[in-house]
Amino acid sequence: MTKTPSGTAPILALDRKLSKPLHRQIYDAYRTAIVERRIRPGQRIPSTRVLAVELGVSRFPVLNAYAQLLAEGYFESRVGAGTVVSGSLPEQSAWKKLAVGHPPRAQSGPRSVASRTSIRPKRETHAWLTGLGAFGVGQVAADQFPLHIWSNLVAKRSRSMGAKSFHYGDQMGTSGLRETIADYLRTARSLNCEAGQIMIVSGSQQALEITTRVLLDPGSHVWVENPGYHLAKAVLAVAGCQLVPVPVDQEGLNVAEGIKLSPKARVALVTPSHQFPLGHTMSASRRLQLLEWAQRSGSWVVEDDYDSEYRYESMPIASLQGLDVNSRVIYVGTFSKVIFPSLRLGYLVLPPDLVERFVSIRSLMDLGPSTLFQDVLSDFMGEGHFARHIRRMRTLYHERRTVLVDSIRRAFGSGAEVLGSEAGMHLTVVWRNQLKDVEIANRAALHHLWAWPLSHFYLGEARRSGFVLGFGGTPVEEIPAAVRKLRAIVAS
Amino acid sequence: MTKTPSGTAPILALDRKLSKPLHRQIYDAYRTAIVERRIRPGQRIPSTRVLAVELGVSRFPVLNAYAQLLAEGYFESRVGAGTVVSGSLPEQSAWKKLAVGHPPRAQSGPRSVASRTSIRPKRETHAWLTGLGAFGVGQVAADQFPLHIWSNLVAKRSRSMGAKSFHYGDQMGTSGLRETIADYLRTARSLNCEAGQIMIVSGSQQALEITTRVLLDPGSHVWVENPGYHLAKAVLAVAGCQLVPVPVDQEGLNVAEGIKLSPKARVALVTPSHQFPLGHTMSASRRLQLLEWAQRSGSWVVEDDYDSEYRYESMPIASLQGLDVNSRVIYVGTFSKVIFPSLRLGYLVLPPDLVERFVSIRSLMDLGPSTLFQDVLSDFMGEGHFARHIRRMRTLYHERRTVLVDSIRRAFGSGAEVLGSEAGMHLTVVWRNQLKDVEIANRAALHHLWAWPLSHFYLGEARRSGFVLGFGGTPVEEIPAAVRKLRAIVAS
Repeated sequence: MTKTPSGTAPILALDRKLSKPLHRQIYDAYRTAIVERRIRPGQRIPSTRVLAVELGVSRFPVLNAYAQLLAEGYFESRVGAGTVVSGSLPEQSAWKKLAVGHPPRAQSGPRSVASRTSIRPKRETHAWLTGLGAFGVGQVAADQFPLHIWSNLVAKRSRSMGAKSFHYGDQMGTSGLRETIADYLRTARSLNCEAGQIMIVSGSQQALEITTRVLLDPGSHVWVENPGYHLAKAVLAVAGCQLVPVPVDQEGLNVAEGIKLSPKARVALVTPSHQFPLGHTMSASRRLQLLEWAQRSGSWVVEDDYDSEYRYESMPIASLQGLDVNSRVIYVGTFSKVIFPSLRLGYLVLPPDLVERFVSIRSLMDLGPSTLFQDVLSDFMGEGHFARHIRRMRTLYHERRTVLVDSIRRAFGSGAEVLGSEAGMHLTVVWRNQLKDVEIANRAALHHLWAWPLSHFYLGEARRSGFVLGFGGTPVEEIPAAVRKLRAIVAS
Repeated sequence: MTKTPSGTAPILALDRKLSKPLHRQIYDAYRTAIVERRIRPGQRIPSTRVLAVELGVSRFPVLNAYAQLLAEGYFESRVGAGTVVSGSLPEQSAWKKLAVGHPPRAQSGPRSVASRTSIRPKRETHAWLTGLGAFGVGQVAADQFPLHIWSNLVAKRSRSMGAKSFHYGDQMGTSGLRETIADYLRTARSLNCEAGQIMIVSGSQQALEITTRVLLDPGSHVWVENPGYHLAKAVLAVAGCQLVPVPVDQEGLNVAEGIKLSPKARVALVTPSHQFPLGHTMSASRRLQLLEWAQRSGSWVVEDDYDSEYRYESMPIASLQGLDVNSRVIYVGTFSKVIFPSLRLGYLVLPPDLVERFVSIRSLMDLGPSTLFQDVLSDFMGEGHFARHIRRMRTLYHERRTVLVDSIRRAFGSGAEVLGSEAGMHLTVVWRNQLKDVEIANRAALHHLWAWPLSHFYLGEARRSGFVLGFGGTPVEEIPAAVRKLRAIVAS
């Protein structure tokens, strides 16, 4: 059953000056539209009354034309659906001959596209990205989300929309949500911020895109963690930046190495709470080194603080943004992990003197974020559901994490090492010996295991191999079997 | 009352090895957070039970610390809200001294930003953009929208979200909405398209941004209509393109002039259904000339088909995309005008061989659109509400349009000419003599009239002056008085 907007009229260019009678013109127009497949079997046709009004003619020629189209089998009447295009059309054989409106749509002649699209990375279509379930990275415990509370807030906000909320909203986001987030960040992440510095975006990807556009020129040097987050590197590469891969160790990004490689890089992009993909937390001394370098070299630090909400072993470390006294840090946060990914809401915390530049670039990109979900999220946070949900999920993910770590130790023994299990919704297993992790990940996907291969996240030669394993979307009771399945695939 | 996510715990770094007792560490941490204003008056504090669990300590030290903070006036108990930070804090005078965590956040030392941000246009903050009501351009009849039906669909879709709809959606958009839009466009706009060519975006602004990034390099020549849509020109300017202003007349963009000015431009950007801002419909012969030029010169045509749904005088003309047989046209559509602007949904119809390039660039920008509203819109269209809403609004806007045109003729007589009133939700009044339209528009905004000055939309010297007047959001009975008010302002 096609989902056609029912009752939409096709373009019928009637001409009263033609000798051809109106009913015949209507008949011809519909027949041609059907034969050319512009309107399709099952698609609803406007009522004769509606079409007469649309065309500004009396109802008689319309009735006349419809009767003929029904008689010839182009239209059929369906109970409850009114008149529709017939499911079994006449002249099926004549279609090809008549379908002159549909020549092959291949390129003809030379056409130019932007040169950046030739350096674009291929769209990520790896097998390990395609499914939901065991080990899927970035997947949340959907069945544990308080959907009933959320949906009630959605319904309430939608029903009470006024003229103001119909119109374009603030390009920075709603003031309600920005205030709420500022309160949250000051409290939970010890940020130094006011609502005026917060820009609502569609997630950390858009945050990185806007930041790249505002701060970086083609050729600018950028420190990126190696291994590091592939989609952040792709944004920078498409923007023509020079990526400087800086090694990470158990203290996070190695600042001294970065300074050796590119002392004057314009930006350093880091994930200090839970380094992606190795999972280390950046140490306090590295944080201070990084800020000191940024101040000395006139550089920026982009702090992608994903996964900061879930910590299991130790108290969170204060954010780089909160430590910074020189307005060097752009802070990126997302609700994809703590609410759900398809919400598409995140935020930037900007140095006050950059707000104007960010908003002028951002507003050209999409005018601003949709307002309804911002209002709903603000309610959800303000009424305490957010803090409660994080607490519940922390307990749940802690349990899943513990079972996963135990299962991995049991399955792989001393051949593999677990990294980054202190926080977040995924951990990384590194093998002592090199392993064809991409090949194994592709095979695992055939068995519905969505493990991400570690070597994929290196620039240049991969120094380590293994898997990034998500546990957010996998119930405790399914984890041991999934790990045993992975062991069988690794062994084979 | 602050909207703090209630019960969020600040970062309390307890250290069991310290000689300082735990209750004192908790007390100190809260006191410092309050004095440094990281947590603020009225903000809720987690219950002692919750905090004890968070910190992994017994409840006694927490109770002890809270008792002291309450006694000293840092905390207070509020009925129904639990414990909050006190509204009247002690040591107000000591704040400045202690607030070492909050040095001035001004820039210190040199910092570089992207050179494109220096050519960025200033954020649009003109007085005439700020209000809702008479003459506001792009404003819809919010009170006429079937909000009850819409909200029921929103609630239904939200309540029934499953694991799949929690996770990231398709970067092109949901297949349901893309099928629905393809059906609609084939029928109502005679496009040649399949769902696979349709990319869901957040509106025509994002559509233009993505198109610019895929098709254009810095320095590429682009034909833009003169006068033309300011935000489209801003996107191109920030991308470093060379704007070629091509004059428009009553047949739309003057193709012959364009060829004289820049025969090999890579892109022509047009609004053929209702030229913005003059409102002319591009004639059939100009459409063919434009497509022929594009084919000959290896160029692209970007067809921004905003306002195509509301036509009052004549039947719609088939889209450029439907006439094109050489895959030269990128078609841009939006739901901002026919549903409401804050929905943030629109679409691109792409030549099949460009789909892969578009999606790889787009997915880096924001991963993809939020799914819920796509599902809701697909339901709204599939169940016939969309076609019905457009029909109702066409009648309503037709009436508002007619009253506005009559009022203008009565108020300004032969001194002014009305253009572009055959379609859409706004028209343009052009004065025979030059007029300081920007100045008048600023003054009109003080009287709550949101007229856009025509000269603002010219590149180079404005050849005509007047106002773009929206009528979508202004009830019939308010229009004559608003026009009389505008006349008084013009005369003064």
